[in-house]
Amino acid sequence: MSKKSPLAPKSFPRMPAIGGLTMASGACGLRYKGRSDVMLAVMEPGTTIAGAFTRSLTASAPVDWCKKALKGGTVRAVIVNSGNANAFTGKLGEEAVEQTVEAVAGALGCKAAEVFVSSTGVIGEPLPANRLVSALPRLAKKLKPGGWPGVAKAIMTTDTFPKGAVARAKIGTKEVTICGISKGSGMIAPDMATMLGYIFTDAKIDQKILQTCLKSAVDKSFNAITVDSDTSTSDTVLLCATGAAKNRAPKTAGDPALSEFRAALDAVALDLAQQIVRDGEGASKFITVSVTGAENTKAAKTIALAIANSPLVKTAIAGEDANWGRIVMAVGKAGEKADRDALDIRIGGVQVTEDGFRKPGYDETPVAKHMKGREIDIAVDVGIGRGKATVWTCDLTYDYIRINADYRT
Amino acid sequence: MSKKSPLAPKSFPRMPAIGGLTMASGACGLRYKGRSDVMLAVMEPGTTIAGAFTRSLTASAPVDWCKKALKGGTVRAVIVNSGNANAFTGKLGEEAVEQTVEAVAGALGCKAAEVFVSSTGVIGEPLPANRLVSALPRLAKKLKPGGWPGVAKAIMTTDTFPKGAVARAKIGTKEVTICGISKGSGMIAPDMATMLGYIFTDAKIDQKILQTCLKSAVDKSFNAITVDSDTSTSDTVLLCATGAAKNRAPKTAGDPALSEFRAALDAVALDLAQQIVRDGEGASKFITVSVTGAENTKAAKTIALAIANSPLVKTAIAGEDANWGRIVMAVGKAGEKADRDALDIRIGGVQVTEDGFRKPGYDETPVAKHMKGREIDIAVDVGIGRGKATVWTCDLTYDYIRINADYRT
Repeated sequence: MSKKSPLAPKSFPRMPAIGGLTMASGACGLRYKGRSDVMLAVMEPGTTIAGAFTRSLTASAPVDWCKKALKGGTVRAVIVNSGNANAFTGKLGEEAVEQTVEAVAGALGCKAAEVFVSSTGVIGEPLPANRLVSALPRLAKKLKPGGWPGVAKAIMTTDTFPKGAVARAKIGTKEVTICGISKGSGMIAPDMATMLGYIFTDAKIDQKILQTCLKSAVDKSFNAITVDSDTSTSDTVLLCATGAAKNRAPKTAGDPALSEFRAALDAVALDLAQQIVRDGEGASKFITVSVTGAENTKAAKTIALAIANSPLVKTAIAGEDANWGRIVMAVGKAGEKADRDALDIRIGGVQVTEDGFRKPGYDETPVAKHMKGREIDIAVDVGIGRGKATVWTCDLTYDYIRINADYRT
Repeated sequence: MSKKSPLAPKSFPRMPAIGGLTMASGACGLRYKGRSDVMLAVMEPGTTIAGAFTRSLTASAPVDWCKKALKGGTVRAVIVNSGNANAFTGKLGEEAVEQTVEAVAGALGCKAAEVFVSSTGVIGEPLPANRLVSALPRLAKKLKPGGWPGVAKAIMTTDTFPKGAVARAKIGTKEVTICGISKGSGMIAPDMATMLGYIFTDAKIDQKILQTCLKSAVDKSFNAITVDSDTSTSDTVLLCATGAAKNRAPKTAGDPALSEFRAALDAVALDLAQQIVRDGEGASKFITVSVTGAENTKAAKTIALAIANSPLVKTAIAGEDANWGRIVMAVGKAGEKADRDALDIRIGGVQVTEDGFRKPGYDETPVAKHMKGREIDIAVDVGIGRGKATVWTCDLTYDYIRINADYRT
């Protein structure tokens, strides 16, 4: 395993048990030696579930399964393995998923459609589902409330640290808790760095409302980060609500009683997503790109992603070079309306451009100092309208090449 | 200057003079010491011109000028400098262009709109046009037929070799010649690696027909290559036809008398464009990506570019790793119709996938050998329709990071 990312949080957060949820992790030897590679989460009957998945048209067999199972709206178990993505595995891949979910459903006495499965790791290798199945009795014995660091580690691939986040909120008079884990170190290296997130809460929330809350949270978090612009075949975020907190169930996603919960969910999703960026392959800088003044929100996000995905911007930041010309270039290539002569580019809060040119008297000294830090802020106003968006990424370094050029060998 | 790319052609081609065209190159000290940085091409009255430009919305002042001047349809001079892109230079940039074209027009006694200008180099620094203007008398004295290596060198920035191509064709009974030069080593590093191409012919061709011929050639060449997916503010390709060959002027772009010329033009454009890829920053492999079976041509090109621009595909190739899972991923993220279970991926001509899985009995040995070569072929049939496209790119190496992370410092 690689050295821990310099951008990692100091420690794994203290995360409490969630009522109605038990978990276990273990090793079934899919690829790695001497580490756990499977997690099992089991929930009480009546737990609702929401999901968000990769838009890839070559999605993996587990993603196909989860999309279908989500229509049922409830969940009893989530099983996740690392080491093998079960992607591009044809009929064998579907069979491996069926074998796994049926075994879990049999053990719990639930419907197969209440079992959700994810796989992350190498593409195009058959997944030996029998190893997962034969690990089930051992996992079942170990099920217990909490144990977050263990499950967070079991789903890691090239990640250099386990990722967890927690938040609390009130719904009416009841306090509810939200705990989540995630993995994915290259934004998306389909071999080994699929983006996965599993969020659990004891709140009682109807499935449709839960789905609305998750979609909104994911758009501003997991769908607003990028490491290398590549898209995995396996990306999955699930949100499970056990209802153990026995709060009064909100009637709509817009219910004011839900606003504190939604803010907490947004925070957990953002924290988990940003930790993925902080573990970006070879990352040495955490970059925030904010775009304002765009035609609308979508245009702002497109421009922000064009900046965040530009290899030239990312290598300049790796080189601690305040090369704002490359930001101009990236805005130009995004294809969304931007007023070249009104562009306002700020790096570390310092205004660099004005009237379509370098700002008169621009002093690079404070900007050069900012570029030497770990956290880089780029803000661009494109001078058209009121659309705004923020995305997060990391720099593009020698180590990204080393990890990805040498990976399979 | 960096070491010559390992993918460079053995030598600069022998290129003849073009009737009606004289050229000169020289040094005006814009950025570099001890090398030429400006070229001037002068053509006889009546020379027609076609152009293709960057789609960037933050295009440079020279691009803005050329687009406007192109409406006149004729050209007397093309002046190109390296070292400074005159991009994102606001009012000063427009003034620098005006000062330059007016000086050239004055010297030749032609209209300013018959003078085309390009600048390539650093973004956001004012271009000292007076240095160009004061170099004009020296350049004018040196004008002569031919001299291609000299002008090809004058327009280089981070290029490691000068780029030229030549072809001949008959229009009716007359032989015509097409000569071109290009530059641009990162596909598009807006600081220093804008893609520029200048093609000259002694054929007599009406401006509208010339424009149709150029657009078609550029779509299959300059617009079908990528090094790092970034788009310059300055990309420009110009095609000038002096008419000195005195061929019977074709009546339409579809005139059969023009078909040999168009094939020759396509070949010159493709050669010049591929040389840019061969000089891609840090490139160690030249990669051809062919997509067939797509919904239509546009979809095929989108999928081919998704593969060619994927950092994960490019780093795998740098590592000589036949990692076809990343090709599956790139097809999936392209967003165009593809039948996952009918994907036919071939590397170096060897079929890797079948029925949505690795082909039974797939032997990696010949593919691994292919990956060690300089020229890598990836062919993908996506199993939907008859659309096809080919694009060219290079791998993503440590040296790309070195060149782009350390450039300005």
